Amino acid sequence: MSGSSSLLRDLLNISARTVKLDERLDDPKILSNLLGESRRLGLSEEFCRRLLGLLIEEKEKVKGVVEGEDGLRLRRFAARAMELRKAGRRIVRLELGEPDFSASEKIVEAACEAIREGRTKYSSAAGLRELKEELASNLSSKYGVDLKAENIAITAGGTLATYAAIEVLSRPGDSIMVIEPAWPLYAHQIKRLGRRVVRVRTRVEDGWDPVEAVREKVSRLVKIIILNYPNNPTGKVLDRKSFKALLDLAEDYDLWVVSDEVYIDFSYNGEAPSILEYNYPKMYYLNSFSKTWGMTGFRVGFVAADPEIAKRVSGVLSTVMTCVPEFIQRAALAALRDEESKKRNVELIGRRLKVLYEELSRSKLIELIPPEGAMYVFPKIKAEGFSSWNFAEKLLEKEGIAVAPGKCFGEPYDDHLRISAVVDEAELRDAARRIVKAVEERIWRKDDA
Amino acid sequence: MSGSSSLLRDLLNISARTVKLDERLDDPKILSNLLGESRRLGLSEEFCRRLLGLLIEEKEKVKGVVEGEDGLRLRRFAARAMELRKAGRRIVRLELGEPDFSASEKIVEAACEAIREGRTKYSSAAGLRELKEELASNLSSKYGVDLKAENIAITAGGTLATYAAIEVLSRPGDSIMVIEPAWPLYAHQIKRLGRRVVRVRTRVEDGWDPVEAVREKVSRLVKIIILNYPNNPTGKVLDRKSFKALLDLAEDYDLWVVSDEVYIDFSYNGEAPSILEYNYPKMYYLNSFSKTWGMTGFRVGFVAADPEIAKRVSGVLSTVMTCVPEFIQRAALAALRDEESKKRNVELIGRRLKVLYEELSRSKLIELIPPEGAMYVFPKIKAEGFSSWNFAEKLLEKEGIAVAPGKCFGEPYDDHLRISAVVDEAELRDAARRIVKAVEERIWRKDDA
Repeated sequence: MSGSSSLLRDLLNISARTVKLDERLDDPKILSNLLGESRRLGLSEEFCRRLLGLLIEEKEKVKGVVEGEDGLRLRRFAARAMELRKAGRRIVRLELGEPDFSASEKIVEAACEAIREGRTKYSSAAGLRELKEELASNLSSKYGVDLKAENIAITAGGTLATYAAIEVLSRPGDSIMVIEPAWPLYAHQIKRLGRRVVRVRTRVEDGWDPVEAVREKVSRLVKIIILNYPNNPTGKVLDRKSFKALLDLAEDYDLWVVSDEVYIDFSYNGEAPSILEYNYPKMYYLNSFSKTWGMTGFRVGFVAADPEIAKRVSGVLSTVMTCVPEFIQRAALAALRDEESKKRNVELIGRRLKVLYEELSRSKLIELIPPEGAMYVFPKIKAEGFSSWNFAEKLLEKEGIAVAPGKCFGEPYDDHLRISAVVDEAELRDAARRIVKAVEERIWRKDDA
Repeated sequence: MSGSSSLLRDLLNISARTVKLDERLDDPKILSNLLGESRRLGLSEEFCRRLLGLLIEEKEKVKGVVEGEDGLRLRRFAARAMELRKAGRRIVRLELGEPDFSASEKIVEAACEAIREGRTKYSSAAGLRELKEELASNLSSKYGVDLKAENIAITAGGTLATYAAIEVLSRPGDSIMVIEPAWPLYAHQIKRLGRRVVRVRTRVEDGWDPVEAVREKVSRLVKIIILNYPNNPTGKVLDRKSFKALLDLAEDYDLWVVSDEVYIDFSYNGEAPSILEYNYPKMYYLNSFSKTWGMTGFRVGFVAADPEIAKRVSGVLSTVMTCVPEFIQRAALAALRDEESKKRNVELIGRRLKVLYEELSRSKLIELIPPEGAMYVFPKIKAEGFSSWNFAEKLLEKEGIAVAPGKCFGEPYDDHLRISAVVDEAELRDAARRIVKAVEERIWRKDDA
């Protein structure tokens, strides 16, 4: 037997013993000891992190840890709502994170003009210079910072911006912190890229403040923390004190902070804080044109970060899909110049969130915070036997109202619902009243028969 | 010290000894022995593959193996060509894989109509049913197979189709075979996704036939082989005998075959064979609208595979960018129905390839195969001291002609050039003559002064 064969067998043997131990492998002390050992042995830190990640994953596999796929289930649920509507039923659809308003005439015409002008060839993965300059200048003047085009990367929406964040700022086996309840795609992307999710739980009883929960769970194993304020699904806007406290914690542990600010324009208690205000050294800001301008189906967003990071984000875009179509970037440029439709859209959502709060807070069985931002409310239902999937399914079939079950946003939120402010006020008020009635009547107790 | 700490230290110690050994770790026998051992120990095959992959990577790192980034360098070179043109010089640009023709009026109008109709909201990651049905029906009647919409996934161009292939059909640490010369993005995507590239070298002297070279290098370590015929950069079309021989080999080793057929319409010796003809069990077909219809900047392509695989490809699309804009898919649908512009584009490229061959084959210093397909010729320059980067740079600065250095398509091809048939015949003939002259005059010997 060759030397390597025998060593490799030893490696497998010891690996098997390690994963069968009852001890936790994700204790930060273990990693820091191992990193020291690696350096001493001339192995890279990355090797060490990935080896440990591999063992932790294998341990979970051996122990049969299986994660829910409630995010995917929501898609099937939305398809069911669509189906019922197509079959002729009147369905109020409040289950998705898509505004009902569409891109303005100006945006539409800019896209068509660009297509007709033949702006349909390969373009730079780095994105259109003009668009990046305008974004940099807007952000600079809004937040009193000094961003240049080189700090900006154009992406295919917020989705590619978070995917690229994970790809660029961490390596397989690394841990990434997600504050729950959360958009389910974060965890999904993290896992697809072979990284590990560290979940932090926040509670409506604490007004969704995450600082203490993060403090308890943060460790040197974590490479990135993802923030999303104004928050999907809770509607929480972080106050400046909490934002600063989170960044201080992040700095203590040398974390990258990915701040997903796709709802930043939808802030209803004054301007929501942005990571751009804090001069945080390992900062990754992302935003999208999807929500503010009703451009969900255009797939265009952007990142602001250190020029080297922005360049690597464009590298991910290039690897995955070559470039964002130039005519779509031209539409985005037109959106930036269409302050009017932005203002109208933001006011519209704000009025609707008030309506939802007014109606839902009438019930003693429902607990929720007054709306601060984003496009959602995330009430907790305090009634025995309530389960978010069961309720949502019954509500759809019996009342023709679709809402998103809380469990989609994290295992512990099965007593919550996410309701999107994406239909007009009168319809929304009526739907909210019927939701309250369904809760008070405890429809989950009734048989389907 | 806890039990796991001590075991983990042992793991690192043995890892360090393993990577310092002079033996190869990528011998297929090693893997197959280890897989047996893993099963016996109750570890997953995946753990075993990834552990070995991690060690191989670390070994390369320790030994300082660094790969060229000629693909990226080509981009900078193209940017230089663009810069010279902007500065007022007449530059003939033959360095990129982008046709000069654009999307037809019908395609453009279909896109604009869809945008105006408000088809600008989130759409299904699975893609537009109508488009998938038409693709399935076209492929079925062309190749005498029975594909349904469920076999098709819509992607953001060929780029996302190959990225998804790697993500879906292999795991980190797996090996993927690439036949060189090759489009540099394959290797780049493979490495970004933490897989390993196994390179197979083909030669103009063998008429670029890959069968023997693949036979020599294939092993049980390989999970996927990527085929790309008609080929970029060589223009080679595989004959049916060689195609079948490759598939037989692939079947022997239980490989997934990813067949990148983005140039399949550009076949000039009768119909080029497609993987769809062979009923290969682990088949992954991909194509794009980019080349045939001049739609490079639209970013739309498609995959045909088993329904379960197609679904997982849509899962990757969803994870990375949510969906392909519906209005872009509507433009693709219009392209499918525009046979006329397809025919015109294909004939145009065919005539130009003949021109390139006629002119280049006049020189005894240049060896190339008669054009069979795709949009390129890939001549070998048989002259002492020739280096593809040096020549390309001198040719651009002195003659105002940009071509792609052979080295971009694989380390061994520094004595080749890729020339794209993307300008009109008269200009192309003149450029080809000037390239021949530059070769005969051995411009690489001349000083820049």
